[in-house]
Amino acid sequence: MATPQFKELRRSYGFDEVAIVPGDVTINPDQTNIDFKIGNFTFSIPIIASAMDAVTDVNFATLISQLGGLAVLNLEGIQTRYDNPQEILAEIAQVSDAEITPLLQKAYSQPIKENIIGERIQAIKQSGAVCAVSALPANTKRFAPIATEAKADILVVQSTVTTARHTSRSLRGLIFPELCQSVAMPIIVGNCVSYSACLDLMRTGISGVLVGVGPGAACTTREVLGVGVPQITATIDCAAARDKYLGESGRYVPVITDGGFRKGGDLCKAIAAGADAVMIGSIFAQAKEAPGLGYHWGMSQPHPALPRGTRIKVGTTGTLEQILFGPASVTDGSQNLIGALRSAMGVCGASTVQEMHNAQMVIAPAITTEGKSWQLSAT
Amino acid sequence: MATPQFKELRRSYGFDEVAIVPGDVTINPDQTNIDFKIGNFTFSIPIIASAMDAVTDVNFATLISQLGGLAVLNLEGIQTRYDNPQEILAEIAQVSDAEITPLLQKAYSQPIKENIIGERIQAIKQSGAVCAVSALPANTKRFAPIATEAKADILVVQSTVTTARHTSRSLRGLIFPELCQSVAMPIIVGNCVSYSACLDLMRTGISGVLVGVGPGAACTTREVLGVGVPQITATIDCAAARDKYLGESGRYVPVITDGGFRKGGDLCKAIAAGADAVMIGSIFAQAKEAPGLGYHWGMSQPHPALPRGTRIKVGTTGTLEQILFGPASVTDGSQNLIGALRSAMGVCGASTVQEMHNAQMVIAPAITTEGKSWQLSAT
Amino acid sequence: MATPQFKELRRSYGFDEVAIVPGDVTINPDQTNIDFKIGNFTFSIPIIASAMDAVTDVNFATLISQLGGLAVLNLEGIQTRYDNPQEILAEIAQVSDAEITPLLQKAYSQPIKENIIGERIQAIKQSGAVCAVSALPANTKRFAPIATEAKADILVVQSTVTTARHTSRSLRGLIFPELCQSVAMPIIVGNCVSYSACLDLMRTGISGVLVGVGPGAACTTREVLGVGVPQITATIDCAAARDKYLGESGRYVPVITDGGFRKGGDLCKAIAAGADAVMIGSIFAQAKEAPGLGYHWGMSQPHPALPRGTRIKVGTTGTLEQILFGPASVTDGSQNLIGALRSAMGVCGASTVQEMHNAQMVIAPAITTEGKSWQLSAT
Amino acid sequence: MATPQFKELRRSYGFDEVAIVPGDVTINPDQTNIDFKIGNFTFSIPIIASAMDAVTDVNFATLISQLGGLAVLNLEGIQTRYDNPQEILAEIAQVSDAEITPLLQKAYSQPIKENIIGERIQAIKQSGAVCAVSALPANTKRFAPIATEAKADILVVQSTVTTARHTSRSLRGLIFPELCQSVAMPIIVGNCVSYSACLDLMRTGISGVLVGVGPGAACTTREVLGVGVPQITATIDCAAARDKYLGESGRYVPVITDGGFRKGGDLCKAIAAGADAVMIGSIFAQAKEAPGLGYHWGMSQPHPALPRGTRIKVGTTGTLEQILFGPASVTDGSQNLIGALRSAMGVCGASTVQEMHNAQMVIAPAITTEGKSWQLSAT
Repeated sequence: MATPQFKELRRSYGFDEVAIVPGDVTINPDQTNIDFKIGNFTFSIPIIASAMDAVTDVNFATLISQLGGLAVLNLEGIQTRYDNPQEILAEIAQVSDAEITPLLQKAYSQPIKENIIGERIQAIKQSGAVCAVSALPANTKRFAPIATEAKADILVVQSTVTTARHTSRSLRGLIFPELCQSVAMPIIVGNCVSYSACLDLMRTGISGVLVGVGPGAACTTREVLGVGVPQITATIDCAAARDKYLGESGRYVPVITDGGFRKGGDLCKAIAAGADAVMIGSIFAQAKEAPGLGYHWGMSQPHPALPRGTRIKVGTTGTLEQILFGPASVTDGSQNLIGALRSAMGVCGASTVQEMHNAQMVIAPAITTEGKSWQLSAT
Repeated sequence: MATPQFKELRRSYGFDEVAIVPGDVTINPDQTNIDFKIGNFTFSIPIIASAMDAVTDVNFATLISQLGGLAVLNLEGIQTRYDNPQEILAEIAQVSDAEITPLLQKAYSQPIKENIIGERIQAIKQSGAVCAVSALPANTKRFAPIATEAKADILVVQSTVTTARHTSRSLRGLIFPELCQSVAMPIIVGNCVSYSACLDLMRTGISGVLVGVGPGAACTTREVLGVGVPQITATIDCAAARDKYLGESGRYVPVITDGGFRKGGDLCKAIAAGADAVMIGSIFAQAKEAPGLGYHWGMSQPHPALPRGTRIKVGTTGTLEQILFGPASVTDGSQNLIGALRSAMGVCGASTVQEMHNAQMVIAPAITTEGKSWQLSAT
Repeated sequence: MATPQFKELRRSYGFDEVAIVPGDVTINPDQTNIDFKIGNFTFSIPIIASAMDAVTDVNFATLISQLGGLAVLNLEGIQTRYDNPQEILAEIAQVSDAEITPLLQKAYSQPIKENIIGERIQAIKQSGAVCAVSALPANTKRFAPIATEAKADILVVQSTVTTARHTSRSLRGLIFPELCQSVAMPIIVGNCVSYSACLDLMRTGISGVLVGVGPGAACTTREVLGVGVPQITATIDCAAARDKYLGESGRYVPVITDGGFRKGGDLCKAIAAGADAVMIGSIFAQAKEAPGLGYHWGMSQPHPALPRGTRIKVGTTGTLEQILFGPASVTDGSQNLIGALRSAMGVCGASTVQEMHNAQMVIAPAITTEGKSWQLSAT
Repeated sequence: MATPQFKELRRSYGFDEVAIVPGDVTINPDQTNIDFKIGNFTFSIPIIASAMDAVTDVNFATLISQLGGLAVLNLEGIQTRYDNPQEILAEIAQVSDAEITPLLQKAYSQPIKENIIGERIQAIKQSGAVCAVSALPANTKRFAPIATEAKADILVVQSTVTTARHTSRSLRGLIFPELCQSVAMPIIVGNCVSYSACLDLMRTGISGVLVGVGPGAACTTREVLGVGVPQITATIDCAAARDKYLGESGRYVPVITDGGFRKGGDLCKAIAAGADAVMIGSIFAQAKEAPGLGYHWGMSQPHPALPRGTRIKVGTTGTLEQILFGPASVTDGSQNLIGALRSAMGVCGASTVQEMHNAQMVIAPAITTEGKSWQLSAT
């Protein structure tokens, strides 16, 4: 009798399950270079604020650009549906839990106004910031020309899962090689989580890939669809695709890990796993300058039949500058992310993000009582 | 000295420990076909309501048939012991926790009336629904002729563990090849969890297999007997048996994963693991139309010496239609199961249930704090 | 450079981490034979009550013998220090938590009286029960002759860890081959947990081995000394030693898994892992007839410098007969242990304990929410 | 297509995930020798009190030396900044949680006074104790001569991660071979966690290595930087480096596991994993004689931008003698550490610490309910 063919399951790992091993050499944190490049743009910190309405508006994009990073404005969110988005954002922050779902549904049923898109992009540009904007794949053909005209710098095409080959009833979906031809900006596409899907995307000619689908067990994507890959494994796989693509094309397409971060340690682990940059949502929703006013919510477009995400009170812990560079006023690792990254790179002897990709990592489960009560380091 | 022979333990996996990896191609959810066939019957959704008294009665069977699925009426439960089962069901829903065990014992000590069996089957048939009925292996010889006469469509022979070869003191137990000869209906048998036991059952000529024994650590079968296999591994193993049997016989015997589902993600994972359909109990007990009136209980025949199962308050969350097709009024993934399945198939690029069997899966433990607090997806 | 030599760690498993896979054939539970033999004694159930003061006294030993099992009277516990042990047992059950440690220290500092040893053994024998008694290795030379004279049937030599080769300052420790020569009774020795230590013990000529050292993570042995092996792995290893020894000697030395049981499922798993019998403490301390009066405590001889164990309120759940044979009044699996064992053997198609050793097992972690809320089996 | 190169993750283990397997021979605990040697010093117990201000002052160093162990005085802590450190220690123990961070910042911003360093060392020496002192690598060149002059016995160079090759902007960092030449004392360096980093350090000529970086999942180093290795794996790796270095140099450089201990079992596991000694902080902070007065805190030098550690109330459980030698007044394994170690060595048949390195260990997860409620050992 032939051996039965059982479906194989591969072990995957999330932030909580791994740790970085210090290196054999160490360097001073202030000697680390953490530049991140996308197309011809160079950012002094490898941090991108996500295209969520509780995180990125014109003001936040301006601010993070001044601090060395980048923010992505969602062209299909609150900001492009309302002349005065502050009003509806304040309302979202004020209504009771019982009222929030209908309010969000109403808020996102307002039509997107193309003239506001232009205004928002110009406002960001006028501040001197690099302007990145995002659209769903299905709407990219509509919004890309508007963004181009308004002189946006970077286009992000993002949905829960985006592949180079999508089949839909419409005659022709979005063809990335054509998009890259027609749009002069660098294009970042996502999200994906596997080696082959990431490699496929890179081969279309795009300039960056967002990594992350249902990273945590409590993610709505994982809960409702059963779909997802923990972020460390997803990052490792997509980094391998990047290195493969670099070998075959000579072109370095950065991998941006998106989602699931709660603290500096997570960010350091993503970089050590192979990410060139990270896209951060929740932690930034806690910034004083965040448009969410201490709240965070998921869906830019609530699906009436399959709602995912809900409004969460995240609170306000400090300024964006404090979150990025400290001084940390909290001890949970959610502030001074850059200080943490530089320190981690220092103990790994990594002077660049790319060198940090070579740091050793171990599987070290989060669930242990070891040192739970009073683990303290001597120095 | 020879190497000692240690008993080997194989790792198994449950719903919470795995996740589905998105595919390299994606399709629109509305282009997926989720038909499920058993014998000559085709159902438009791969969903079967379980043969439990809190789930299936004539009305529920009629309703789910209209919605594209199937329900199994337990011939040895409340429905065939009482002319008016509503009375005793209402009583079960009303008594205190202290009174429930004796009440259940009393309720199931009433004799099964053969004339009521006929009435129930005819009522389901008259509604236009496909009628499936179930009996224990030991009682199948008694009830199969009655079900045949009443023109039931599908016979389910089900116990905690059913094998093709059972030894008992009685001279001749149930011989499945003989049963398949004598009964004109398609026969579904279960439950089983291993490759070899499933293959044995398929070789008897039956038309479907139910998969699931003590799937969860908190199952009474697992707690009390130590027996059980988590559902993903059980489904993978039985799917391998199905494929093996298809190769040797040319006959496709569907695998129906039964038990342990709490949300859409679980259902998607079972299908991705190889199931052709799923049998659902608890989630349906929460339907407005469920005969359990917001309660659920396990034993059709409480064993006086080894009680298993008890009455659980599951509450009522929505209509059956809502549970199957949405709109979801809750965000825990227990509603719009079909929408979830089609979406998961979409991101895996699977246009049929059989194509979904090829989706990659990873082991991704449930126990992590990753994104626990406010994991939200951007789009 | 040579490869570094890292110490290797082998994965081990406890009750909660495994489950039994149903077999390809099934038999009726009432056709199972669960006899257990030690020396020339045959017991109709493979159950031994442990030598703990909250579990075994003359009355309990008599009762369990009548029910088909065996109990071990601790020759160094309360029973042989007091003419009227009921008094001190009642006191132990009544004092406050603050008073218990000094009381236990006082209780066990009373001298052991050799005449009481004889009386206790004779009382058990007069009831018609098989009489098993236990002593620490260091005290075996002193107590074995007394037990022999009083016509005890089985001698148990037990300490936390007992090996065939113990080094102490005293000129000659206990030599098991000599003990086997000098004592006419079957000798059971323990505890051990590894293949080699168990094989060593069997080669000394003894008649049974107790398996179990610090089985659970919360065991005092594990907490305080870091020493222990989870029971499934310990049982698998010692069962391999038994089979090895059977092959080389033709003599079958039963393996008795001792400790860590909380419910029928655990017992079934131990048997499936290779145990010939199980030694039960805590569950029996919950019997109405247990001398501990609803309490349980660990140390027969509290060590003043390194206290281990403490008094625990376990409550009283039913009679010993109910715990062994049901009917179960609780649903946590702690009653009707024999019914559970026979049922598990039935679904595995095992007609004897030795056949049950061939049951397949899977690693199936306890920690999952799968079916946590309302997992119920249909039949 | 070439196989993609995925970053590999190695599994690592902490105290809670492993257990020691009893040996095939056993010896009496009182026949064990647990001497620990560093340079020409021999200590009768392999225990070092860590260089933390809540643990080690002159009095504590004197006391532990009398009991056979060693303490390390932090030259950059409270003790060398204040003529009368009792005052500030009392204040740290008294202020509210809200006031503690600024107080600690203030306390450690006082300048270190070189004359006090000399006084402290002389006070320890005058008591007859062996005097070990610690400094950060960056400050070692400044403090080593002072310590030498004051006749300290052992120099500890310690930071979170210390390597043999550190790059900094300053022209020349600390060169360990040169330090070993210039300082007559044995030098202990740390912390490190990997085979190669440990081997590098040993090859510089130092006399001992401290092992431990972010051992627990809740460690600040792990939380904030993502950096760390669980202690069992770190100890195994560094022990392999020690054995490698012994083979190539003939010199035995002891490995001292530092951090994460909560009870005797952890200590026994570290020794079984290959440690020659352990450095203990938190448990000693609970001693009546500890300068922390029932509190413990981490940072000798709070970093204003990236605060790690905080003040924790650990309470006072007994005298240092009780913690080391019992009698234990608590049952959590945090007292009579030496009794626990000797007992564990006894059941492993190890008469020396080096023999204990050969004890078998198993992976035995902490997370199980096995025996959780009332696991008790019979003897």
